[in-house]
Amino acid sequence: MINYDQFLSRSAEQMRGSAIRKMGTVLAQSREIISFAPGYPAPETFPWEEFTEITRELLSGADGTVLQYGPTRGYKPLLEAIAGIMESRGAQSSADQLLITTGSQQGLDLVARVLLDPGDVVLVELPTYTGAITAFRNVQAAMVGVRQEGDGIDLDALDETFTRVTSEGRRVRILYVVPNFQNPTGLVIGLEKRRRLLEWAERRNVLIVEDDPYRELYFEDAASEADVRPIRADDDRGRVVYLSSFSKTLAPGYRVAWIDAPAALTTKFELAKQAEDLCTGALDQRVVYESCRRGVLARQLPKLRRYYQEKRDVMVEALSGAFGDSVTWPSPRGGFFLWATLPDAVDSDAMIARAVENGVIYVAGDAFFVNGAGRNVIRLSFSSASHDKIREGVSRLSKTVRDEMAAIEAPAARQ
Amino acid sequence: MINYDQFLSRSAEQMRGSAIRKMGTVLAQSREIISFAPGYPAPETFPWEEFTEITRELLSGADGTVLQYGPTRGYKPLLEAIAGIMESRGAQSSADQLLITTGSQQGLDLVARVLLDPGDVVLVELPTYTGAITAFRNVQAAMVGVRQEGDGIDLDALDETFTRVTSEGRRVRILYVVPNFQNPTGLVIGLEKRRRLLEWAERRNVLIVEDDPYRELYFEDAASEADVRPIRADDDRGRVVYLSSFSKTLAPGYRVAWIDAPAALTTKFELAKQAEDLCTGALDQRVVYESCRRGVLARQLPKLRRYYQEKRDVMVEALSGAFGDSVTWPSPRGGFFLWATLPDAVDSDAMIARAVENGVIYVAGDAFFVNGAGRNVIRLSFSSASHDKIREGVSRLSKTVRDEMAAIEAPAARQ
Repeated sequence: MINYDQFLSRSAEQMRGSAIRKMGTVLAQSREIISFAPGYPAPETFPWEEFTEITRELLSGADGTVLQYGPTRGYKPLLEAIAGIMESRGAQSSADQLLITTGSQQGLDLVARVLLDPGDVVLVELPTYTGAITAFRNVQAAMVGVRQEGDGIDLDALDETFTRVTSEGRRVRILYVVPNFQNPTGLVIGLEKRRRLLEWAERRNVLIVEDDPYRELYFEDAASEADVRPIRADDDRGRVVYLSSFSKTLAPGYRVAWIDAPAALTTKFELAKQAEDLCTGALDQRVVYESCRRGVLARQLPKLRRYYQEKRDVMVEALSGAFGDSVTWPSPRGGFFLWATLPDAVDSDAMIARAVENGVIYVAGDAFFVNGAGRNVIRLSFSSASHDKIREGVSRLSKTVRDEMAAIEAPAARQ
Repeated sequence: MINYDQFLSRSAEQMRGSAIRKMGTVLAQSREIISFAPGYPAPETFPWEEFTEITRELLSGADGTVLQYGPTRGYKPLLEAIAGIMESRGAQSSADQLLITTGSQQGLDLVARVLLDPGDVVLVELPTYTGAITAFRNVQAAMVGVRQEGDGIDLDALDETFTRVTSEGRRVRILYVVPNFQNPTGLVIGLEKRRRLLEWAERRNVLIVEDDPYRELYFEDAASEADVRPIRADDDRGRVVYLSSFSKTLAPGYRVAWIDAPAALTTKFELAKQAEDLCTGALDQRVVYESCRRGVLARQLPKLRRYYQEKRDVMVEALSGAFGDSVTWPSPRGGFFLWATLPDAVDSDAMIARAVENGVIYVAGDAFFVNGAGRNVIRLSFSSASHDKIREGVSRLSKTVRDEMAAIEAPAARQ
């Protein structure tokens, strides 16, 4: 029997599974469980009929390139359509700055491989997106967290952290932020703060990696398009690498996302992608392009905003009813997530077994922290469960927390 | 203006573009050029009607998971179907050994990331597949080449190379081989040699990475199914990581391929894939699965064998007519490629400009060598051009070589 550990790279030795993906597996094993775990968009919102019609036309066989290998950079008309999307978000872009990626996760991985050496420091928000943590860890980068306020990352803490890390002789390459409806907190970085982040990056010679998958999903009762203006839009110095995706607005089953970056970096991302998968799926790119061209995407967006806003309302109402003041959260102004702080005594990771038993799952908060925090916090996704399931799931969660508290207090009472 | 070189990782500094991909770009820029460069399957062979019918059914909307995020490991019924394919190739496998990848290129990249540290040595055939070279280079591995004979890699040279490299204090982790209709030479490793490779790997404690995209495309006038039995089929010790793909047998636009490996390694490949793209496209996997289940794939294979064999015949006849004995090649017994050695004086890389001028492209041989060889060799793909285009392309190539020879001899004559 071969011991395969001897064959593993240092990177592979350190690889760990994602808590979100693990919950996806739990979910797949039982249809009875109500899931607040993975941030899945709701399939009932997908434009199935339009996709069917578009695909039927594409697969007529008249154009062989629809199922052929394509250029690594991406399908040219789609690159041009994305330049138009960037413009609608306030940012000038062009095909030489853009690269189609196989989901935004690939974008994060390319960023990691092209910009980070082992030991390089990435500054991240506390908490931050687990998929980014994984991509940065797999190139053996070091992540250092910066606390957030109500309007996003704390600028004083950011500069203090930078200074401390630099004085230790370590090199800070990247600041990674999710400015709109952050995964997991749902927080939004304020507009003035966005401008100051750009100034800071220029002063400290750091690149900002701006991850923006949720920006179109602003809830009109609490945010406007002005609030979600990308940092990239005001970047006239080439400090920002911007990532976005069609996964949350069309469908994640098409693995189509993009990077917008200074052309010199995009060229490197393209080379790295060449070795990762040659090219993103040709048919997927064509379907996404046709969805842009025919207005399917534009028609989806207002519907999705209302749809997920309603879901948020249902979850917030259910949580308030079930927990009163014992659980708190920043009110989600968009996106898929509600970040709930449970009573101090609860260890949300330890509580998962009980939650599964009660038929509900969430993601334990510690998965999102690079500093070991998040013990009594959970990420609840309201995006995919139906209204009734959200209510029932919250009720199960409430029972789970009550039982957990009782179990914690019981041995204490016996002492 | 920011100098982005300061932000590049050591890996990014060394990244280079693929010669094949570059030729793909040349090709995309002109419809007049006849391409023998990228190994594209012929779209006219794709089962368009079956794909249309399958996709229409899948997109009915009845099953939301068709366009949702899926498990990183892959769509379970497809994993089971692949276990069946492995069995038909003589190898016992199961879902815990299999991972769906986004094309075989991702498989190579995962192998590189999980098994190689900077400076580790990969032994490769001389010449070998450029996509593998790129993936190994991007993790800063060192590649050392081993010459081939008519029946594939030279076993004596292999062990000599291993001994030499090891005596230099370097660590050999992997032997990478393409045993069936190798890209670029078209060579096949003999059956007895395959068994001896396994013994060698066991004795030297090396893993064999067996890349097998072309095996179903054996030409029945020169090879049989027995000839393409994978090394993996006789591996009872867990020495082989096996890669294969649906790109050459269904369509590359669906980015669906797989790795079969000892379960402990597959788990690591899965973790690495999680960070690379979360999961392979859901719809693509479903279409491929349905193509397996409904017998579409099985019906394609004999047709494809005849189709590409005919293409090979046309190219061989045209080359013989145009070049006589001045150009030689091993006769392709399957796959997409013919590996042609031009007159000694020709530098095939330098000749590309003239070839493009004459309306034909190929891949210069040096792209496939890790030791700088291959100067007067070219890889010709006969897979995608029509019979007439193959004849016309060979005629243009013949003119190109004649002109090049004349240009080389002219200044010499003037001296």
